[in-house]
Amino acid sequence: MINGESKIARLRWGMIGGGRTGQVGYKHRTGALRDGTYQLVCGAFDLDVERGREFGVNIGVASDRCYADYKELIAKETARPDGVEVVSIATPNFTHFEITKAFLEAGLHVICEKPLFFTVAECEEVRKIAEAKGLIVGVTYGFTGHPLVEQMAMMVKKGMLGDIRIVDLQYTHGFNAGDDTNASEAQKWRTNPKTSGPTFVLGDIGTHLYYLSEVVLPHLKIDKLLCDRKAFIPTREPLEDHATVLMHYDNGARGHLWVSSVDAGNMRSHRYRFVGSKASLEWTDSFPNQLSYEVQGEPVKILHHGMPYLEDETNAIDRMGALHTEGLGDSWANIYLWIAQAIDAKKRGDEAFLKTHRYPGIEAGTEGVRWLENCVRSADAGAVWVDFK
Amino acid sequence: MINGESKIARLRWGMIGGGRTGQVGYKHRTGALRDGTYQLVCGAFDLDVERGREFGVNIGVASDRCYADYKELIAKETARPDGVEVVSIATPNFTHFEITKAFLEAGLHVICEKPLFFTVAECEEVRKIAEAKGLIVGVTYGFTGHPLVEQMAMMVKKGMLGDIRIVDLQYTHGFNAGDDTNASEAQKWRTNPKTSGPTFVLGDIGTHLYYLSEVVLPHLKIDKLLCDRKAFIPTREPLEDHATVLMHYDNGARGHLWVSSVDAGNMRSHRYRFVGSKASLEWTDSFPNQLSYEVQGEPVKILHHGMPYLEDETNAIDRMGALHTEGLGDSWANIYLWIAQAIDAKKRGDEAFLKTHRYPGIEAGTEGVRWLENCVRSADAGAVWVDFK
Amino acid sequence: MINGESKIARLRWGMIGGGRTGQVGYKHRTGALRDGTYQLVCGAFDLDVERGREFGVNIGVASDRCYADYKELIAKETARPDGVEVVSIATPNFTHFEITKAFLEAGLHVICEKPLFFTVAECEEVRKIAEAKGLIVGVTYGFTGHPLVEQMAMMVKKGMLGDIRIVDLQYTHGFNAGDDTNASEAQKWRTNPKTSGPTFVLGDIGTHLYYLSEVVLPHLKIDKLLCDRKAFIPTREPLEDHATVLMHYDNGARGHLWVSSVDAGNMRSHRYRFVGSKASLEWTDSFPNQLSYEVQGEPVKILHHGMPYLEDETNAIDRMGALHTEGLGDSWANIYLWIAQAIDAKKRGDEAFLKTHRYPGIEAGTEGVRWLENCVRSADAGAVWVDFK
Amino acid sequence: MINGESKIARLRWGMIGGGRTGQVGYKHRTGALRDGTYQLVCGAFDLDVERGREFGVNIGVASDRCYADYKELIAKETARPDGVEVVSIATPNFTHFEITKAFLEAGLHVICEKPLFFTVAECEEVRKIAEAKGLIVGVTYGFTGHPLVEQMAMMVKKGMLGDIRIVDLQYTHGFNAGDDTNASEAQKWRTNPKTSGPTFVLGDIGTHLYYLSEVVLPHLKIDKLLCDRKAFIPTREPLEDHATVLMHYDNGARGHLWVSSVDAGNMRSHRYRFVGSKASLEWTDSFPNQLSYEVQGEPVKILHHGMPYLEDETNAIDRMGALHTEGLGDSWANIYLWIAQAIDAKKRGDEAFLKTHRYPGIEAGTEGVRWLENCVRSADAGAVWVDFK
Repeated sequence: MINGESKIARLRWGMIGGGRTGQVGYKHRTGALRDGTYQLVCGAFDLDVERGREFGVNIGVASDRCYADYKELIAKETARPDGVEVVSIATPNFTHFEITKAFLEAGLHVICEKPLFFTVAECEEVRKIAEAKGLIVGVTYGFTGHPLVEQMAMMVKKGMLGDIRIVDLQYTHGFNAGDDTNASEAQKWRTNPKTSGPTFVLGDIGTHLYYLSEVVLPHLKIDKLLCDRKAFIPTREPLEDHATVLMHYDNGARGHLWVSSVDAGNMRSHRYRFVGSKASLEWTDSFPNQLSYEVQGEPVKILHHGMPYLEDETNAIDRMGALHTEGLGDSWANIYLWIAQAIDAKKRGDEAFLKTHRYPGIEAGTEGVRWLENCVRSADAGAVWVDFK
Repeated sequence: MINGESKIARLRWGMIGGGRTGQVGYKHRTGALRDGTYQLVCGAFDLDVERGREFGVNIGVASDRCYADYKELIAKETARPDGVEVVSIATPNFTHFEITKAFLEAGLHVICEKPLFFTVAECEEVRKIAEAKGLIVGVTYGFTGHPLVEQMAMMVKKGMLGDIRIVDLQYTHGFNAGDDTNASEAQKWRTNPKTSGPTFVLGDIGTHLYYLSEVVLPHLKIDKLLCDRKAFIPTREPLEDHATVLMHYDNGARGHLWVSSVDAGNMRSHRYRFVGSKASLEWTDSFPNQLSYEVQGEPVKILHHGMPYLEDETNAIDRMGALHTEGLGDSWANIYLWIAQAIDAKKRGDEAFLKTHRYPGIEAGTEGVRWLENCVRSADAGAVWVDFK
Repeated sequence: MINGESKIARLRWGMIGGGRTGQVGYKHRTGALRDGTYQLVCGAFDLDVERGREFGVNIGVASDRCYADYKELIAKETARPDGVEVVSIATPNFTHFEITKAFLEAGLHVICEKPLFFTVAECEEVRKIAEAKGLIVGVTYGFTGHPLVEQMAMMVKKGMLGDIRIVDLQYTHGFNAGDDTNASEAQKWRTNPKTSGPTFVLGDIGTHLYYLSEVVLPHLKIDKLLCDRKAFIPTREPLEDHATVLMHYDNGARGHLWVSSVDAGNMRSHRYRFVGSKASLEWTDSFPNQLSYEVQGEPVKILHHGMPYLEDETNAIDRMGALHTEGLGDSWANIYLWIAQAIDAKKRGDEAFLKTHRYPGIEAGTEGVRWLENCVRSADAGAVWVDFK
Repeated sequence: MINGESKIARLRWGMIGGGRTGQVGYKHRTGALRDGTYQLVCGAFDLDVERGREFGVNIGVASDRCYADYKELIAKETARPDGVEVVSIATPNFTHFEITKAFLEAGLHVICEKPLFFTVAECEEVRKIAEAKGLIVGVTYGFTGHPLVEQMAMMVKKGMLGDIRIVDLQYTHGFNAGDDTNASEAQKWRTNPKTSGPTFVLGDIGTHLYYLSEVVLPHLKIDKLLCDRKAFIPTREPLEDHATVLMHYDNGARGHLWVSSVDAGNMRSHRYRFVGSKASLEWTDSFPNQLSYEVQGEPVKILHHGMPYLEDETNAIDRMGALHTEGLGDSWANIYLWIAQAIDAKKRGDEAFLKTHRYPGIEAGTEGVRWLENCVRSADAGAVWVDFK
C-alpha cells in the first residue's frame, strides 16, 4: 500500500499549459504533487502570459519562473543550477511534437498528453532522441493507475481467464451531441485536423481504451482491423465524433470498440470487458473500485479494491484501503509516480529496472499513434479491413 | 392495464414440440394460457410419442388428442367439429417451414419459433399461402411484450430522442463457452447447419435484438451491413458462436451489434441503447421493469413500469402495476394476446385493425430471416460491407 | 423446474372481490390459473353486482355463477354437484374474518389476503374450525414464491451463514406521501381502523417482511420488540403511515425493520438482509432474480436464478430458467400451487406431507397478526419494549 | 471548480501519529498536501521513535524535526521562528484531549480525529481554551467534503424536499465479524473503553453518519433518542460492535440509524436517505459521484458530480470535473482546505467569514460527542428513550 514514503529525490518539475482555463492541468498537478515526488518549480501555463503568471503564483510558483512560452522556459531554466528536470506538456495535440523535441534536446525529461503526436514517424524520431539523450518520455494515460487495472493484468497473466477470446471496449459520452456553435476553445481545437491531428474521438478517448487493453493483454497483437467513423455534426469532418473499430488479434481473439462524443446523456464513461475461455472480467472507470469476475457456471464475483484476496501487485499500489473510494486523482498519482521511478532509474542507469517497470512511456505513446494510423487508413478507405502495421 | 377481461372467443390451440425435455414449451404455455385467451386442446409434444402423451395428459390435454406427429394432428383435428384453430411450433429450426406450410394448407393459424425459416424465399412462399388462406402466422419474439419496450417505441415516435444516430445492441451469454462434448440435444441441433440453418447465435439470439430494434425504430432501414462471425469452438463451424455486425441506416445512423454464446460468465442477457440527437434510451431484459432516459445535460432519468408518467400505450399493456415486478412470462403473455387479437381480426375480416396492430407476424419473421441472409452473405465474403437487400 | 405437469385434479375455484376496480384480483388469477391447477368457476367480484357479473363473464365465468355476494355464492354453489371447492378472498381487511368463517363452515377451503384478521383470537377461532372441518386456509404472502427466497432458506438451514446475528428489513414506498384528499376507495379503507384493523402500513406491507423472514429463519423467535409508529398525514391517525420496529430474537440476534408509505419517490420496494457470523444474504423484490451472498473477506458473490449451482430445492420451483426473468406473477403461481398441493394432501388425508410442506397457511397468517398485535401494544404504550407473546 | 489556486499563505503543519503502521495518516497527508495549502514541516509519527524518524524522512520531513512525542514537538517547534502553526492528531481516542489541550495552550491550531474526546465536558473545556487563544480546532469528518454532500445540503435548504420526515442512516461493515484473537493494535485499542472511550462503532463510524446528517439538515434538532447496542463478540463488552438508534426530531421527523462492524461481507460502507414531503435524496459513500433525487410520481433522477445542473456551491468544490471520478482523497482535500480557510480567517480576525463558513470544527466535534453521550445513556439504561441533552 502506498503511504507516501519514497527514496527518490524530489524531481524539479514544470508545466507547459494547464493554466486556469484548462481542465487537465489540475489532474497533472494532482498526480504529480500527491506525495512530494515532484516539486512544481516553473511553467508556461497560458497563452495569455500575464494570466499565466498570476495563475502560477497562485499555485505556488515563483513569479520569475512563470514564463511566456516553452522556449523561454528552456532558455532560463537550463541556465540555472537548480533548473527544472522534467516538464509536462498539457497543450493542444499539434504542439506536442515540437515541444517534446525541444525539451529532449535541452536535456529534460518529458511527460506528454495523449495522443502523443500525429504520426508514428514522429514518435520514432522522438524515441531516438530520447534514447540518445538518456531521457524518459512519459504519456499520461491517466486511467491505468487504478489498482483494479493492475488486478486485471495479473489475473490474465496467471491464466485465470484462459485463452483470451473477446475484447469489448467502449468510451462514449454525449458532451458534443450538440453542434459547436458555442464551443469552448478546448473543444474547437479538438475538431480541427490542423490542431487535433488525424482524429478527434479516436485519439481523444479511444487511445485510453487501447492502451488499457494493452496493459491487461500485453501478449495480444492486432493482425488486422476495420474502423468505421463518422461526424454526426458535419462541421467536424473530416474528423469523427463517433467510430467503431473491429479487431482481429494474432491468437484468434476478436475485439470491438465503440467511441463517441455524441452518445447523448451517457454518463458511464469507459467500460472494458475481457472474455477468456474460462472466465471474463468487466471494469468501468465510473465505478473503479470494483471489478466483476465472471466464471461460467459460477456465481458472479465482485472484487473490491484494497481487499486481501487481491494480488499483491494490486494492493501494492492501493492508496485509500478497502471501503474507502479511490478516484481518478489516485490513478494519476500512480501514473506520475511510475514515471518518476522511470526517470530515477534512467538517472541511475538502471536499465534492468526499466525493462520490467510498467509505466506509459514512449512505446505506449507510439503504439497509440500506430493504432490511430491504422484506424484512419481503414476508415478513409471506406471502413475496410487493413493489415495492422 | 391488462386484467384478463376479453371479448375474444377462446381459441382452440395446439402445440408441436414443447414437451418435457424442452425449455421453451413452458414459455409458450405461460404466454398463451395466462388469461384464458387460448385453450390447449391437442398437441404432438415429443418425438417420443408415449412420453409426449403422458406429458400432454399431465398438462391437461385429453389422451386421444396427444398425437404422434403434426401430420396425425392435422388429420384428426381437421376431422373434428371442435378441432384445433391455431398451432404453435416449438421444434428445431429445420422443421419450421414444412410444418408451417402443412398447417396453413390445412386451414390453421400458426405461431412459430424464431428464426422463422432458413431463407427469405421460404418466408415469401409462406406469406403467400397465409394471405391466400386468410390465416395468421405469428412469430414468438418473446421479449417484445414488455411494457417498457412499448414505452421506447412511443418516445421515439414522439420525437423525444430527436434524430436517431446510434443503435447499440448486445445479446451475449457464456453457456456455450465450453465445447459440445456433453451437449444436450437442444444444443446439438443448434450448431448443425442441417438442423439450425445458416446461423447459430445470429439466428438464435441475434434476431431478438434485430426485431426489438425494428419495434422501437420502425422508420429506420438498413442500407448496408458488415458481419464478422467466428466459431471459437471449431466443431461449430461453419456456424458461429460469436459475431459482430455493423449497420448503416438510411438516415445516416450507425448501428453495431454483438451476439455471443461464449461470453463466459455474462449473466446480463440482452441490452439495447438507442441514441438520438437529443437523448438516449437504454434498456435491458435483465431488469425489464426500468428504463434509463438520458437527456444530454440533464440528470439521468430512471422510468419504472406501471407509473402514471409513462405513455398510455405503455400502461395499457402493464399487468402487475408499479412496484410489482414483471418477468419474461408477462411479456410472452402480451405477445400471445396480440397474436390472438390478430387472429380474431382476421376471422372478422377486420383488415383495418390488422394494418395498425403491432404483433410479431410473418413480416417480422421475414425481416429477421432477411437480416440473417445479409449477415451470412457479408460474413462468408470475408466480413465485408454488403448492400442490404 | 416447473413445467406445468401435475397429477393434482384441477380445483374448482371462486373469488370474492378482485373485480375490475381492484388491482390484486389479477394477481390472484395470474397465480391460480398459471398451470391449470385451478379452474375459475364462480365469483362475487364486485359490490356493484352488475359490473361484477359483466367482469366475471369477460374473464370466462358463466353468467349464472357470478353472484351478488359471498352468501349467495355459498348458497348456490354448495347446492351444485360441481360446486366450488376453494374460494379466494380479496376484499378489505375487515371482511376477512366473517367471510372466511362462512366458507369454512360451508365446507370450502379458503385463500385469504393478508393481514389475515384483526386479532390473534380470531385466527385461533378460524384455525379450530378449519381443523375440525379438515380444510385448508391459505394466506397470500405473494412474494415468498420466488426461487431465491427458497435459496436463502436453504443456505441458512445448511449453516452457510453461521449463527444469525442481524435481520435488516425494509418495505417502503411513497405512494401515500401526499394527503388522502383524492384517495381511491382502495386507499380510503386502508387508513380507517374500522375497515383496515389496528394498523395501516404495518399490516399492509410489514407483514410481508415478517413472513418472509420467518420463511428464511424458521428457527428464530422474537423475545421482545419495540415499535415506533407515526402518521405523517394526520388524518390517518390512529393508524400509521410509517413505522420502525426493533426486535430481539431468542438466540441473541438483533432485528430492525422499516415500513413506510410516505418514503417519497422510493421505487425499490422491499429489501432483506440476513447477517450471520460467517456470511450475509441480501435480496430485494425489485430485482428478484439475483441474490447477494457475502462472505467476510471474500469477493461478493451474485447468485442468479435458474443456475445449477443453486440448491435443488431452489431450482425445483424455477419456471423460466437462467437468463430469463421471473416476476411477481411467477411467485404468486408458486404460492397458489403450494396451497393446491396442501388442499390435495388434506383431501387425501396426507398429514405427513402437510407437516413438512412449506406454504403460507393459517399458522403464517396467525403469526403475522400476532406480530401486529405486539407492534401495536408497543407503539401505543409509547414505543416501549414489550415481551413478545 | 477547485484548481489549486489560492491566496492563503501556506500553513506550516505537523502530525502526531499517522506513521507507517497506521492507515489514517496517509488520508490526512493526502488531504492537507493536495494543493500546497499546508507544508508538512514536523511530526511525532510513531511510538517507535526511530521508525517514526525514518518514516518522517521518507515523506520529506527534516530528520531533526521528527520528534519523539508531542511534548518534544511543542518544546522544539515553539522555539523556532519558522515553527509549526497547526498540528493534526491521528492517535487513539484516549490521547485526543490531552494532546489537543497542550497544543492549544502552546498557541497552535489543532486538527483532530473523531470522535473528538470522551465527554462533552472535555469538549467545552477545549472550546473555551481555543476561543481564548484565538485558535481553530478542526475535526476530520473526512466524508463530508464530497461535492454531492454539499448538493444535498443546498437542495434541502432550497426546500426541494419539502418538510423533512425521515432520516435513514447506515454505516456497516464486517471487518470485525470474527473475534479479536489476531486483532491488530489499531483494532485492539478501539474495543477497550480505556483507550476508545465509551463506545466502539458508535464513535468510530456512527459519528460520521451523524455529522453528515447535520450538514444536510442543520435546522433539525433531536428531541429524544433510543439506542440499542450489543457486542456480538463478548470480549468487546461493555463496548458495542453493533447498534441501532431511533431519533425523534423537533419538527416531528423520524430518524433511524444502524452501525455495525459485524455486518459480514457488506462492502457498501455508508448510506444516507433523507425523505421529505415532496422528494427524497439517497447517497452512498461507495459511489460518491452520483446522487439519487426521487420526487414522488416522477422518474427517479440520478445526478452526477461536475454537471452544470448542480448548484453553484456544489460545483465550486468539484475537483475532477464531470465523468471523472472523485474519491475519498478529494473529500479530505476539501475538508483540509476548509479548515485552512478557517485558520486563515482566524488569523485575519475575520469572524464574519467564520460565522458562515462550513467546516467541521469544535462545534461539530462537540455535537458528535454529545450524540454519543445520549446514545450511551439510553443504551445503558436498557435501550430506553432519553431526552436529548
